Amino acid sequence: MAVNVGSSTNIIIRLEMDKQQITFGQIITAIGETGGEILAVDVSGTSKQMMIYDLTICVNSNLTSSIVTQMNGLEGLKVINVSDQTMLMHLGGKIEVASKIRIKNRDDLSRVYTPGVARVSMAIHEDPSKAYSLTIKRNTVAVVSDGSAVLGLGNIGPLAAMPVMEGKAMLFKQLADVDAFPICINTQDTEEIIETIKRIAPAFGGINLEDISSPRCFEIERRLIEELDIPVFHDDQHGTAVVLLAGLYNAVKLVGKRLSDCSVVLCGVGAAGSACTKILLSAGVTNIVGVDRYGALVRGQQYDYEAWTWYAEHTNPYLKTGSLSDVIHGADIFIGVSGEGVLTAADVRNMAKDPIVFAMANPTPEILPEEVEGIVKVMATGRSDYPNQINNVLCFPGLFRGVLDCRASRVTESMKLAAAKAIASVVKEHELNENFIIPSIFNQEVVEKVRKAVMDEAYESNVARRRDLRTREVYPLPT
Amino acid sequence: MAVNVGSSTNIIIRLEMDKQQITFGQIITAIGETGGEILAVDVSGTSKQMMIYDLTICVNSNLTSSIVTQMNGLEGLKVINVSDQTMLMHLGGKIEVASKIRIKNRDDLSRVYTPGVARVSMAIHEDPSKAYSLTIKRNTVAVVSDGSAVLGLGNIGPLAAMPVMEGKAMLFKQLADVDAFPICINTQDTEEIIETIKRIAPAFGGINLEDISSPRCFEIERRLIEELDIPVFHDDQHGTAVVLLAGLYNAVKLVGKRLSDCSVVLCGVGAAGSACTKILLSAGVTNIVGVDRYGALVRGQQYDYEAWTWYAEHTNPYLKTGSLSDVIHGADIFIGVSGEGVLTAADVRNMAKDPIVFAMANPTPEILPEEVEGIVKVMATGRSDYPNQINNVLCFPGLFRGVLDCRASRVTESMKLAAAKAIASVVKEHELNENFIIPSIFNQEVVEKVRKAVMDEAYESNVARRRDLRTREVYPLPT
Repeated sequence: MAVNVGSSTNIIIRLEMDKQQITFGQIITAIGETGGEILAVDVSGTSKQMMIYDLTICVNSNLTSSIVTQMNGLEGLKVINVSDQTMLMHLGGKIEVASKIRIKNRDDLSRVYTPGVARVSMAIHEDPSKAYSLTIKRNTVAVVSDGSAVLGLGNIGPLAAMPVMEGKAMLFKQLADVDAFPICINTQDTEEIIETIKRIAPAFGGINLEDISSPRCFEIERRLIEELDIPVFHDDQHGTAVVLLAGLYNAVKLVGKRLSDCSVVLCGVGAAGSACTKILLSAGVTNIVGVDRYGALVRGQQYDYEAWTWYAEHTNPYLKTGSLSDVIHGADIFIGVSGEGVLTAADVRNMAKDPIVFAMANPTPEILPEEVEGIVKVMATGRSDYPNQINNVLCFPGLFRGVLDCRASRVTESMKLAAAKAIASVVKEHELNENFIIPSIFNQEVVEKVRKAVMDEAYESNVARRRDLRTREVYPLPT
Repeated sequence: MAVNVGSSTNIIIRLEMDKQQITFGQIITAIGETGGEILAVDVSGTSKQMMIYDLTICVNSNLTSSIVTQMNGLEGLKVINVSDQTMLMHLGGKIEVASKIRIKNRDDLSRVYTPGVARVSMAIHEDPSKAYSLTIKRNTVAVVSDGSAVLGLGNIGPLAAMPVMEGKAMLFKQLADVDAFPICINTQDTEEIIETIKRIAPAFGGINLEDISSPRCFEIERRLIEELDIPVFHDDQHGTAVVLLAGLYNAVKLVGKRLSDCSVVLCGVGAAGSACTKILLSAGVTNIVGVDRYGALVRGQQYDYEAWTWYAEHTNPYLKTGSLSDVIHGADIFIGVSGEGVLTAADVRNMAKDPIVFAMANPTPEILPEEVEGIVKVMATGRSDYPNQINNVLCFPGLFRGVLDCRASRVTESMKLAAAKAIASVVKEHELNENFIIPSIFNQEVVEKVRKAVMDEAYESNVARRRDLRTREVYPLPT
């Protein structure tokens, strides 16, 4: 029997067994020889000649493939499927559609469906704003992707994007009681994506764009914001930007600087990098230098992408040029939304006193925290296995809860700033330190604070369409 | 106080009250004067000057509007909203998105979302058929409408169609555990509807088209069946046809005729009428005469609609001409999918012995059962307040349960016939009589029988893509 080293895991192997060619005892022996231990046997199909078994096996995680090979090598045996715990959690999908009301009798049926429902439809036909009270619109968000930039996996297409969008829908529901439904679009043409989302918009109170590659994501978001009357929010851009800003608010507090006085170097001028820069500009930061593969972006140059040209025109006031290592000299803050290892410890040493480094590349940051221990003052990454994780989950549930609750027509720049401040405010003065500048994603205060900040700002910005009882000095009671 | 006659109902009136101008006592008095009785008072908003009340009032149902008028006439009082029980059941919509798994800790999160979900996405990217096991696709149906022909309300648009589609989603869930999501499309252009549905198809295992007007519905369904690899089913056409055929199977049994020997006159050659005719042709009926506003459709004539030309070419073997009253002479079966009152008692008297009349116009049938009592042998309508209701609810839940469970790529004509036979079979020989030819929509056997019949036929027709263990003589056990 092989020695069991490393972490073990439970897998379920579905086997088809020809009873005339192999016995169950032979299967037990073979599994034992590979180092696996059978924990449970379930029969999932049977006939005179064949058996289908689901075997739950405890196995060293790197021995799974050798068990499968061993099984397939036996005469009369065939492995149909192998699942580990992650795969098993996904069986049949992670979300479902539930009825809010059980139809118990004909009277119920005649109210929720024909003939009673006709009156509800006519009420909406006569006053479309009633869709917000009489349909799911007021609590429902479409999580839309074309599968062109899924996590760090690249262009894997709409079908493969589904598990991610379902996961996002779970988070929406659990954290903020928002009903989110995944819409994975089978085209990657910008105009077709825009058209499709516009056409399916009636059922939804908001659109969360997700994992759409740059630069198409800019045009798609811009046009949908213009052409729809519900909020459209590309989370990979603005969710990241909001949480980054929240972290920076607390980081500068720690080092005793004012954010608007800080000089910032940002590496990776893609979708997230552009959004991070825009929110910093809105927050009053003026000295930002963007760096991409050809070095610092500076006005007057010709760039391949429209977004880079825009960037060069709106940043880099002192017209710095050169590589990342050149422009990082004297910077207060480094923001990385690029790739593994682009920042060196030497670069960080060249920054201003008390360097702040947000290295958010996924899955491996621009520089690992252990490489700059003692050099960096505040360090944040996108990873859950280091302190100070910049995670979009801190933003999108509360933000959409807020826009739905006040029926906002869009998400303004000031609403994003308000969300960032709200997230930062969850970390109390006495809690704040280098390893705790951003609240945990499980902190229950976050959603409510973000919601309230977003709603208040939506009313200020005149994009909230739900009657604001506050302006009449009649405050709604909590329900 | 007005005398309370007729049926009373509970309504909730939301009132905004200026405390400096009116007292609550004055409101009570005013409501009493209109004949309403206050059952409950809830405060939904308050400030120094204003109050917002939700008053639950028991009132004679035809006095609601006079209460509202009375309230709005009082100084310092404003009616914000009035809801009755049907409206209240719709508040916030009738369905929601639920998580199947609660995320309790970081380990759960890392499996259902990043980073664990990446492996699930890659598994689907490598083998797209795994979307059926690892996403919601295997249990999810889009209920798609453009709002062009909603119930009997006409072209009220996609937003107003939502309550109907949500009601349908409730029925899908409660009766067959199918997750259905409403997609109301904001275009009525045939090509745009087709494009849109094709683009959002990845998440879904089937498409239920609903309340799309004729003749566009034909082209939309035909093209989607051709161009998608999941079942597409226009319920207004085929759901009606399947349940009609189920009723006819039992009706002809009662009168001792063979369906294929019967002569049929069908009135109203729209979407439902065409589908009813096609299923009858598939069931072996040859003598069908279609009648629309210019009389019997007969081959060789020029017609405005392509569907009518097709109809004339495939029916009316004896080339009958004239009005409904002309061609009904000697007919065994009348099928109405047209409008109120087009059939007369005299027409029914002119039919063959033991006339069978399915008068399915909504909300008022082609002829009312009481007008032909003693003349007609078997009578069915689309209404729930007469015996023998032809209701689509008998078909679509079990049919989609079946196609999802065997991963059918389409719904064949033989699957529809099988569904009709399954519905008919729920009525046992000893139960069958003139007033009971079709099972109740609450009969629990219907879904399972339809599901099994549809699945069996899908495997027979080679459109089922889930591995058929039966062909290998290994039967799956119930899970």
